[in-house]
Amino acid sequence: MNSPLFWITPVASLTALLFAWIFFRQMMRSGEGTETMRTIAQHVRTGAMAYLRQQYKIVAIFFALIFLVLAFLAYGLQLQNSWVPVAFITSGFFSGLAGFFGMKTATFASARVAEAARGSLDAGLKLAFRSGAVMGLVVVGLALLDISVWFLVLNHWINPGNPQEKLTIITTTMLTFGMGASLQALFARVGGGIFTKAADVGADLVGKVEASIPEDDPRNAATIADNVGDNVGDVAGMGADLYESYYVSILAAAALGAAAHVTSDPDIQFKAVIAPMVIAALGTLFSILGAFVVRTRPGAGQGELMKSLGRAVNLSSLLIVISAFLLLFWLDIPNYLGIWGSIVTGLLTGTVIGKSTEYYTSHEFKPTRGISASGKTGPATVIIAGMGVGFHSVVIPVLAIAIGTTFAYCFAAGNWNFDTATISDGLYGIGIAAVGMLSTLGLTLATDAYGPIADNAGGNAEMSDLGPDVRARTDALDAVGNTTAATGKGFAIGSAALTALALLASYIAQLKIGLISFLEKSGSYVFPNGASIDNIEAAREISLIRFMEYYQVTLINPKVLIGILIGSMMAFFFCGLTMNAVGRAAQKMVEEVRRQFREIEGILTGKAEPDYARCVEISTKGAQREMMLPSMAAVIVPVIVGLIFGVPGIFGLLVGALSSGFVLAIFMANSGGAWDNAKKYVEEGHFGGKGGDTHKATVIGDTVGDPFKDTSGPSLNILIKLMSMVSIVTAGVTVAFHIF
Amino acid sequence: MNSPLFWITPVASLTALLFAWIFFRQMMRSGEGTETMRTIAQHVRTGAMAYLRQQYKIVAIFFALIFLVLAFLAYGLQLQNSWVPVAFITSGFFSGLAGFFGMKTATFASARVAEAARGSLDAGLKLAFRSGAVMGLVVVGLALLDISVWFLVLNHWINPGNPQEKLTIITTTMLTFGMGASLQALFARVGGGIFTKAADVGADLVGKVEASIPEDDPRNAATIADNVGDNVGDVAGMGADLYESYYVSILAAAALGAAAHVTSDPDIQFKAVIAPMVIAALGTLFSILGAFVVRTRPGAGQGELMKSLGRAVNLSSLLIVISAFLLLFWLDIPNYLGIWGSIVTGLLTGTVIGKSTEYYTSHEFKPTRGISASGKTGPATVIIAGMGVGFHSVVIPVLAIAIGTTFAYCFAAGNWNFDTATISDGLYGIGIAAVGMLSTLGLTLATDAYGPIADNAGGNAEMSDLGPDVRARTDALDAVGNTTAATGKGFAIGSAALTALALLASYIAQLKIGLISFLEKSGSYVFPNGASIDNIEAAREISLIRFMEYYQVTLINPKVLIGILIGSMMAFFFCGLTMNAVGRAAQKMVEEVRRQFREIEGILTGKAEPDYARCVEISTKGAQREMMLPSMAAVIVPVIVGLIFGVPGIFGLLVGALSSGFVLAIFMANSGGAWDNAKKYVEEGHFGGKGGDTHKATVIGDTVGDPFKDTSGPSLNILIKLMSMVSIVTAGVTVAFHIF
Repeated sequence: MNSPLFWITPVASLTALLFAWIFFRQMMRSGEGTETMRTIAQHVRTGAMAYLRQQYKIVAIFFALIFLVLAFLAYGLQLQNSWVPVAFITSGFFSGLAGFFGMKTATFASARVAEAARGSLDAGLKLAFRSGAVMGLVVVGLALLDISVWFLVLNHWINPGNPQEKLTIITTTMLTFGMGASLQALFARVGGGIFTKAADVGADLVGKVEASIPEDDPRNAATIADNVGDNVGDVAGMGADLYESYYVSILAAAALGAAAHVTSDPDIQFKAVIAPMVIAALGTLFSILGAFVVRTRPGAGQGELMKSLGRAVNLSSLLIVISAFLLLFWLDIPNYLGIWGSIVTGLLTGTVIGKSTEYYTSHEFKPTRGISASGKTGPATVIIAGMGVGFHSVVIPVLAIAIGTTFAYCFAAGNWNFDTATISDGLYGIGIAAVGMLSTLGLTLATDAYGPIADNAGGNAEMSDLGPDVRARTDALDAVGNTTAATGKGFAIGSAALTALALLASYIAQLKIGLISFLEKSGSYVFPNGASIDNIEAAREISLIRFMEYYQVTLINPKVLIGILIGSMMAFFFCGLTMNAVGRAAQKMVEEVRRQFREIEGILTGKAEPDYARCVEISTKGAQREMMLPSMAAVIVPVIVGLIFGVPGIFGLLVGALSSGFVLAIFMANSGGAWDNAKKYVEEGHFGGKGGDTHKATVIGDTVGDPFKDTSGPSLNILIKLMSMVSIVTAGVTVAFHIF
Repeated sequence: MNSPLFWITPVASLTALLFAWIFFRQMMRSGEGTETMRTIAQHVRTGAMAYLRQQYKIVAIFFALIFLVLAFLAYGLQLQNSWVPVAFITSGFFSGLAGFFGMKTATFASARVAEAARGSLDAGLKLAFRSGAVMGLVVVGLALLDISVWFLVLNHWINPGNPQEKLTIITTTMLTFGMGASLQALFARVGGGIFTKAADVGADLVGKVEASIPEDDPRNAATIADNVGDNVGDVAGMGADLYESYYVSILAAAALGAAAHVTSDPDIQFKAVIAPMVIAALGTLFSILGAFVVRTRPGAGQGELMKSLGRAVNLSSLLIVISAFLLLFWLDIPNYLGIWGSIVTGLLTGTVIGKSTEYYTSHEFKPTRGISASGKTGPATVIIAGMGVGFHSVVIPVLAIAIGTTFAYCFAAGNWNFDTATISDGLYGIGIAAVGMLSTLGLTLATDAYGPIADNAGGNAEMSDLGPDVRARTDALDAVGNTTAATGKGFAIGSAALTALALLASYIAQLKIGLISFLEKSGSYVFPNGASIDNIEAAREISLIRFMEYYQVTLINPKVLIGILIGSMMAFFFCGLTMNAVGRAAQKMVEEVRRQFREIEGILTGKAEPDYARCVEISTKGAQREMMLPSMAAVIVPVIVGLIFGVPGIFGLLVGALSSGFVLAIFMANSGGAWDNAKKYVEEGHFGGKGGDTHKATVIGDTVGDPFKDTSGPSLNILIKLMSMVSIVTAGVTVAFHIF
C-alpha cells in the first residue's frame, strides 16, 4: 500500500453501510398505521420474500453450474485465473444481498410512509427518501466493500517475479469477478421485470375485461402481486442492476489505469488504479451528506419536493467535481488535469442523457403531450406516436456518448488527434468517465428506489381507505419519483455504454494474459494474420493497436462483420424473449383472476378475500421459467461465437450488441416512459380526462409500454455487459481454440 | 470486348423491355368494364400521376443541387471522377422511369383485372400477373440497359496507361453511379410510403371515428387516396427500391470482380467483371420464361394459384443454377466451381429468409395465430405479441446471412479458414451471391407488383358494386399476393445486407483511388497510424487488410466505435422520422375527411361526391414535406461524419447502420406483416370473426403495423445502401480532409 488515500474506500464503504443501518432503524421505529395497513403490507412482504427465495434458489443452481465450469477451466485446463471461480460467487452473492436488503427495506417502508403521509407531506417525503437511501447506500457500500477486500487480499497474495506486472494481474483478475455481479443482475432484472409486468399488465387487463372492476381494487386477486412486483422488479431488480453497473465500472477503470500506466513507475500505476475506487468512495460520502439535505418545509408542494431532491444531487455532484480535482492533484498522476476533465465529462454526459430522458418522457414537454393528443384518434395513433418519440429520443444520448467519449478520451490522452501512441491513456479516460458518471450513485439510487416505495405507499393508502388527502400526498410523492427515476435511468444507460466501451480494452488485456499462459504451455502461437510469436516478453510488449492487427479485428474481416450482425440480433432477440415472456405470464394471470371470480364466491361483493398468494405464485413461476432462456443465451452465445469465429468474432459480437443494444434500450425505455406519462397527462384532466376515449387509448399505450420500460429495456444494459464479461472470463479459451 | 458472352446483357435487357411492352399492350387491349369502374380507375390514375409529377419535381431540384456539388467536386476540386455527375443523373432517371412505367401499368390494370375476374379467376390471375410482370421486366430491363450502355461507353473512353487498371477504373466509376439510383429509391420509398400509409391509416381512423362508415366506402373522401397510395407506395416505391437493389448489387459485384482478379491477366479480370452482369441477364431471360408458366385451370382455388406462382419461381431459379454453372465453366474463371457455389449460396440464403418471413407473417403458422389469440385480451396484448414476434423473427435471417456470408466467402476464396491472402476473392463471392439472390428479380418483382394490382382490382370491384362472387375472386388474388410479397421482401432485405457488406470493400477501392489522386497532386500522404507514402505504385499495391491497418479501422479505435454508435442511431432516427411523418399526415387526413362531412352536404346520404382530389393532395403534400428531412439526413450525415472522424468514422457509420438497420428492418417488416395477417385470420372467422372485440383489437395492430411494414421498414434497406453510396462518392474528400 503506497498511498494512504486508498483507505478512503473501505472507510466510505463501512460508513455507507452504517448509515444504511441507521436509516433502516429510523424507518422501523416509525409507526406502521392501522390494522388494515399492516395486513396489506404483510401480504406484499410475504409475496416479495417468497419470490426472492424462489429466485435465489434457481440462481444458486445456475451459479453452481457455472462455478463448476469455471473451476474446470481454472484448475483442470488452466485456461483461467484460479481466483475467478471463488470470486465469481462472492460478487454474485453481494449483488443479490444488495437487492435483498433494498427490498426488505422497501416492503417494511410502504405502510410506514403512508402512515407518515397521514401526518404531513414532509414526514412522508423524508421517510420515503431515507428508505430509498438504505438501498442506495447498501448497494454502494457492499460494492466498495467487495472491491476493497479483494484488492487487499490479492495485493497480499499476488507477487509475480516482475513487480511491474503485479497491478496488471490484480486488476484484470478482479475485473473477471464482475461476471458474478452481471449474471446476478441479469437474473434480477429479467426475472423481476417479468414478474412485475406480468402482474401489472394482468391486473390492468382484468380491470378492462371484467369491466366492473377498477384498477388497484382489493377485489382483484392480482393487486397484491402487482405491489409485490414493484418491489421485486423496481427495487430488488434495479438494486442488483446498479450494483453491477457501479462495480464493473470501477473495476474496468482500475484495470485500464493499470494498463495505461504500466510503463511508468509502480507508484504511479498504483495511483491510477486506486483513483477510480477513491473517487467512488468520495462520491459515496457526499451521497450520505446529500441525503441529509433532502427535506421540505411543511405544506410544500410537488415543485419544492423536486427542488429538494435536485439540490441534494447538485450538491453532491459539485462536491465530487471539486474533490476529484483535489484528489488527483494530491495523487499527482501524470496529466491529472486531463483525467479530471474526463471525470467531469462523464458527469456532464450523464446529466445530458438524464435531461434528454426527462424531455422525451415527462408530460411537461411536447413529445409526451403529443402522444396524449394523438389519443383523440384512438390507440393505434398513440402507439405510432409513442414509437416515433422513442425512435427520436435515441439521437441526443448517442450524440452525448459520442461527444463524451471523444472528450473523455482526448482529455486523458492529453492530445486532440486521437494519437494512437496514447490510446491506453485515452481508454482510461473513458473508463474513469463512467466512474465519474456513477460516483454519486448512492444518492441517485436513493431517488430511484424512492419511486416504488412512494408508489407502494400510495397503493397501501388506497386499499386501506385512508381518504383522498392522504392519497393526494402519496401521489405527489409518487409523481416526483417518476421524474427522478428518468434521470437515474439516464445515468444507468450512459454508464453502461461507456463501461462497455472500456471493457473492449479490458478484453484485449485478458486476451494478452491468455496468450501469455498459452505461450507458457505451448511455446509458440500463430496469430490469424499469420504472424507467429514464441517469446513471452515480446507478447507482453504488444500494443493494443498491434494486437488488433494480429487478430485482424478490422471492419473488412467477415468474421468481425458476422459477429456484429449476430450481436445486433442478440439485442433484438433478447427483447423478443422478454416481451413474449411478459405477454404469456400476463395471460395466465388474467385467467387465474377470472377463475377466482368464478370459483370463489363473494369476491365481487367484498365478502370473501381473493387468493392473492396464488397470483403471486403464478407471477413467480412465470418469471422463473421465462428468465432461463434469455439468461442462458447471454452466457452461451459469446462462448459459441468465440469457439467458431475466435477473437474477431467476439469483438464483432460485443460491438454489435453494444451499438444496437444501447440504442434499442433507450428507444424502449423512453417509449415506455412517454406512454406512461401521456396517460398521466390525460388523467390530469386533458383531452377529456379520466374515463374518456382518449384516456382509454392512452391506457393501452401505457400497457404496451410496461414491458418496454421495465423488462426489456433495462435488461439490455446488463445483457451488453454480461456478454462482455463472459467473453473476458473465457478469453483464455478463445485464444487457445476456435474453428475459423 | 474480349468475350462475346457480354452481349447477352444488352440482348436480355432489350428482350425484357420488349416483353414488357407486349404485356402492356395485351393488358391495354383488355376491357375496362363498366362506366363506374372506369371512373374510379380514372380517379386513381389521375391522383397517382399528380403525385408522381409532384414527387419528381422535388426530386429533380434535389438532384440538380447534388449535381452541382458533384460537379464542383469533380471539375472544381478534382476530388471526384469526372463521369460521376452525369451518370448520377442517368441512374436516377432510369430508376424513376422504372417506377413511372410500373405505376402507369398498375393504374391502367386495376379496373381491367376486376373486369377479367368477372369472367374467371384464371383470366384475372393472368392479367394481374402479366401487368405485374411489366413492372418486373421494366425494372430489370432498364437496369441492364443502363449498365450495358455505360459499360460500353466507359470501355471505349477509359484507356489508362496501365491496361491492368482499365477495368478497375471502369467498375469503380460505374459503382458511383449507383448513388443516383439509391437517392431516387429513397425518395420513392419514403415519399410513397408516407403517402400510402397516411391515406390508409387516415381512412381507417375515419371509419372508426365516424362509426357509421365502413372501410373502403366511397363516401369516405380518403378512399381514393388510399388506392392511389397502393400505386405510389407499393408499385412505384417498390419499383425504384428494387431497381436500386438490383443495379447496385450488379455494379458492386463487378467492381469486386475487377479487384479480385486484378493480378491475373486482363482477360480473366474482364470475365470476372462481366460474370455478374451476364448472370443477371440470364436470370432476366428465365424470368420471362417463368412469366409464361403462370396459369391456373378454370375454377382453380387459392392453393393452385400459389402453386402456379411457386412453380414459375422454382423453374427460373433452377435454370439460373444450371446456366450459371455452364456460364462460369465456359468463361473458365479460376475457381469457377467455388464462385458457382457462392451464387447458389446467395439463392439459398434468399430462399431461407423468404421462408422465414413467411413463417413469421403468414397466418398459416403459429406466431401470427398467437397474435390473433392475444386479441382476446385487447389491443395492448396484440401490440406486445406482435412486437415479440417481430423481435424473434430477426434470428433466422441474421443467421442465414451469417452462414451465407461464410459460405459465399469461403467458396469463392477457395479455402475454409478465412485466409486473408484470398480476401479479395472471398469478397467477390459475397458480391456475386447477392447477384445470385436477385437474379430472378424480374419474376419475383412481378409477383410483388401483382399484389397491389390485385388489391386495387378488389377495391375497384367493391366500389363498383360488382357483387360478392367477383369480390371473392379478387380477394383470392389478393391473398396470394400477400404471401408472395413476403418472399419478395425477404430477397430484397437479404440482398441489401450482402450488397452493403460488399460495398465496404468497394469503399476501400474508392479510397485507394482517392489516395492515388491525392498523391498525384500533393506528392505524399500521411496515414492516421503515422505511416507515410509518396509513391503511387506503392499505393496501388496496398492490400485491403493493410489499408485497414493504415487507417486503423479496428474495433478499439474510438473513432470507429463512435461511428458505429452513430450509424446505429441513424437507423432508429430514420424510423422515428418516417413513423412520425405517417402519424402527422394521417391526422391531417382525418381532419380533412371530417371537414368534408361537415361542409359538403349530402356525402353521407350518397347524394354528393366527396372531394377525393383534396385528400390526394393532402397525402401528396404531407409526403413531399416529410420526405425531405430523412432523405437529407441520409445524404448529409455520412459527409459530416467523414469530415469529423475521417475514414475510421465512416467505416463505423456504415457498419453500425448496416447491423442495426438490417435487424431493425426485419423487425419492422415482420411485425407489420404479422399484425396484418393476424387481423385477416380473425376476419376469416376465428376468435369471434369480423366485428367482434378480438377483431377490433387486431385492427389496431394492423394500423400500427402499416407504417412499420410499408414505410419505415423497407426504407431502411435503401438508407443503408445510400449512406454507403454517399461515402463512396465522397471518398476522395474524406481522404483529403478530416478533422480528427
